[in-house]
Amino acid sequence: MTPTLLSQAQRESLLAPLLKRAWKMGDISSPTRDAITKEFTFANFVQAFGFMTQVAIKAESVNHHPEWFNVYNRVRVTWSTHDCSGLSENDVNMAQFCDSIAIVPS
Amino acid sequence: MTPTLLSQAQRESLLAPLLKRAWKMGDISSPTRDAITKEFTFANFVQAFGFMTQVAIKAESVNHHPEWFNVYNRVRVTWSTHDCSGLSENDVNMAQFCDSIAIVPS
Repeated sequence: MTPTLLSQAQRESLLAPLLKRAWKMGDISSPTRDAITKEFTFANFVQAFGFMTQVAIKAESVNHHPEWFNVYNRVRVTWSTHDCSGLSENDVNMAQFCDSIAIVPS
Repeated sequence: MTPTLLSQAQRESLLAPLLKRAWKMGDISSPTRDAITKEFTFANFVQAFGFMTQVAIKAESVNHHPEWFNVYNRVRVTWSTHDCSGLSENDVNMAQFCDSIAIVPS
């Protein structure tokens, strides 16, 4: 099924909670792009790349891949959907997945 | 041992060959930075992330880490050395390593 852009109702129900958890609209070069970006900081490179590996495996399994930048312990992830030129439910799902695995266990 | 900037002689002997193999001086936002950047293109995301994983393991083992961006089958890698604010032999070594594993086997 071709992904479709989030509706206004979905933006309120699905996107708003992400924006309260440090996801920002846009990407590093365009704040107006219909995309979401978050920077995650880890203890070191191994932790950061471990996070990326978990996201990579999930991304491949659902065929929805990130745009991301890493330097040492920082990973900046951008989600957007090429097929609909903006945010779809796939992006919300992957952003939620990122948050779920980036949380440091207590 | 603290890394030191490449000498002029090293730039001619070590850096020049990399620049003939599609490494460019600088990074995506600054062509004048003392760094080298190359974009690698693979068949798909799994191939691209496989390359990144090999580089990540090597990088951690020599404690010299990349700055890199990935989207689907493309990986843009930048090497520079924070400790000397520019290019050191570590960057040459890692760039050579990237080239060595990115070559498609015949």
